Amino acid sequence: MGFKIVVWGLGAMGSGMARLITEKRGLELVGGIDRDQNKKGKDLGKILGGESLGIKVENDFNYTFKDADLVIIATTSFTREVFPQIERAVNNGLNVITIAEEMAYPEAQEAELADKIDKLARENGVTVLGTGVNPGFVLDTLVVTLSAVSCKINKIKATRVNDLSPFGPTVMKTQGVGTTPEEFKEGVEKGEITGHIGFPESIRMIADTIGWDLDEIKEKREPIISNTHRETPYIKVEPGMVAGCNHIAWGLKDGKKIIELEHPQQICPEKEGVETGDYIEISGDPDLKLRIKPEIPGGKGTQAVAVNMIPAVIEARPGLVSMMDLPVPRYIK
Amino acid sequence: MGFKIVVWGLGAMGSGMARLITEKRGLELVGGIDRDQNKKGKDLGKILGGESLGIKVENDFNYTFKDADLVIIATTSFTREVFPQIERAVNNGLNVITIAEEMAYPEAQEAELADKIDKLARENGVTVLGTGVNPGFVLDTLVVTLSAVSCKINKIKATRVNDLSPFGPTVMKTQGVGTTPEEFKEGVEKGEITGHIGFPESIRMIADTIGWDLDEIKEKREPIISNTHRETPYIKVEPGMVAGCNHIAWGLKDGKKIIELEHPQQICPEKEGVETGDYIEISGDPDLKLRIKPEIPGGKGTQAVAVNMIPAVIEARPGLVSMMDLPVPRYIK
Repeated sequence: MGFKIVVWGLGAMGSGMARLITEKRGLELVGGIDRDQNKKGKDLGKILGGESLGIKVENDFNYTFKDADLVIIATTSFTREVFPQIERAVNNGLNVITIAEEMAYPEAQEAELADKIDKLARENGVTVLGTGVNPGFVLDTLVVTLSAVSCKINKIKATRVNDLSPFGPTVMKTQGVGTTPEEFKEGVEKGEITGHIGFPESIRMIADTIGWDLDEIKEKREPIISNTHRETPYIKVEPGMVAGCNHIAWGLKDGKKIIELEHPQQICPEKEGVETGDYIEISGDPDLKLRIKPEIPGGKGTQAVAVNMIPAVIEARPGLVSMMDLPVPRYIK
Repeated sequence: MGFKIVVWGLGAMGSGMARLITEKRGLELVGGIDRDQNKKGKDLGKILGGESLGIKVENDFNYTFKDADLVIIATTSFTREVFPQIERAVNNGLNVITIAEEMAYPEAQEAELADKIDKLARENGVTVLGTGVNPGFVLDTLVVTLSAVSCKINKIKATRVNDLSPFGPTVMKTQGVGTTPEEFKEGVEKGEITGHIGFPESIRMIADTIGWDLDEIKEKREPIISNTHRETPYIKVEPGMVAGCNHIAWGLKDGKKIIELEHPQQICPEKEGVETGDYIEISGDPDLKLRIKPEIPGGKGTQAVAVNMIPAVIEARPGLVSMMDLPVPRYIK
């Protein structure tokens, strides 16, 4: 039946990945974990909206999962929060893929935990990877891949313009959608409006991989103030209110912005003629301009890349790895 | 000084790579080989149009190159022709990168030689890679990379539209530029008009990597008949004559074209409003559309990717490898 996979965290992302795993020839879904007490003991297949799988959802990591090859963890965005779950899985001999954004390159903001994870993984002979559409693909892996046809690079700029309209209340809150400009400012200062999670990770991944020593990474979160009425099932934005967050980050060397990543996220961008897409510009010899239009969808893209990386992670050398350490990522049947 | 590199074949591509190597921090150019008797004994730096390097150009592989780490071979497009050179280098303990198009995936058309190279390389503890902008990057590596964010793929289509205007008489001949439609047809039949070299390699590389069993690979070469006067320093094309070759290839499964690669090559495409670019379309879940515009320049792109892959090849496991076996390709400083 192929590799045995457990999914930890059965929210929208985790459920999507679990369903995708059931469709892949070389993979077998053997377990699901979610902290929701209401899901405990229910049939995993039913929870996923399909046929019974004869597998009961658990509330926590269970010794029965020891036979599995790999666990996909989709419970949080942060290395600090996902660490105990990774530790648990690794100590039980499982390989790990997590879509926790910071884990795409935990060296960037959690060097100590990254070391700890690497050591634990090596001791247990398993591999740990953080991935997702972004960080993990659009603003780092794809940028680095394109850099391979450059003789000389002066500057890298990449932009991901997306549409938040399908998302629910949590995302509206973290992106400041529906706030006034004053509330937005306050929310950013208080750390409640976070914008995109993953810029330090993507920038460090690029810089470390192509051998650029950065002096500093800077970030800025600006309100996207709407000129029109915009509305989704979850939120209404009137002219003068905030439709989203334009989050920009720079990698600086000698005062120069040699890496610039930009991720404006808003609801209904088409209302003001904004076209969604992923854009990469490498200035150098030669100049390179890549565009993916519309943008790679965030949810599906993350689910796809996490599931597609499963065989590569199982076959990789033990330790903490990033997308940069593994062979060219690829679709699996 | 870093890795010691020899360049075998000092034509336009080889010379470009040799110059690029001298600009890279971790690489040292230690030798140059060219069959041209007029270059023999001349200073390699002068041959490259720069300062003296204190290295004499050789006519053939020389035992003094045994101390080098890797040789880049840029002498031919064909596995059969480059094989003796690879054999020579490998038997002397050198890693090899070649831009011979067929070597991007020699399994496609020269399975026996591919086996032989793999065995030789393993015996000698060295690695052999074929790469270049295409095959090697645009119509295979980049396609596979993009496939990683796909949940499901139905069809892959990729097109590289380029401009042959900068190229000389040899390329004009192999692409049939300046012929009449009748001469073009005859040239294709006789095998003198080859179009692009590398389609079976790119298609097999994609299919094998994402686990698609193809029944068949088909190719078609069609004349691009000009409606206007087109002219380069090397050739003149009048209306009704052939401005280039549109070469198309398909990977078929159950009669369906599930991989389609197209590479129309012509002089002065702008004369008829044709915009050059690299285009990838993956139909599935989700649909993905990538564009690089203008196209990645062929000469610089090939030189860049071959030189940028040097550290990865030296660090790789022994044997014959393809771009699919190595970590995400990347720029080196």
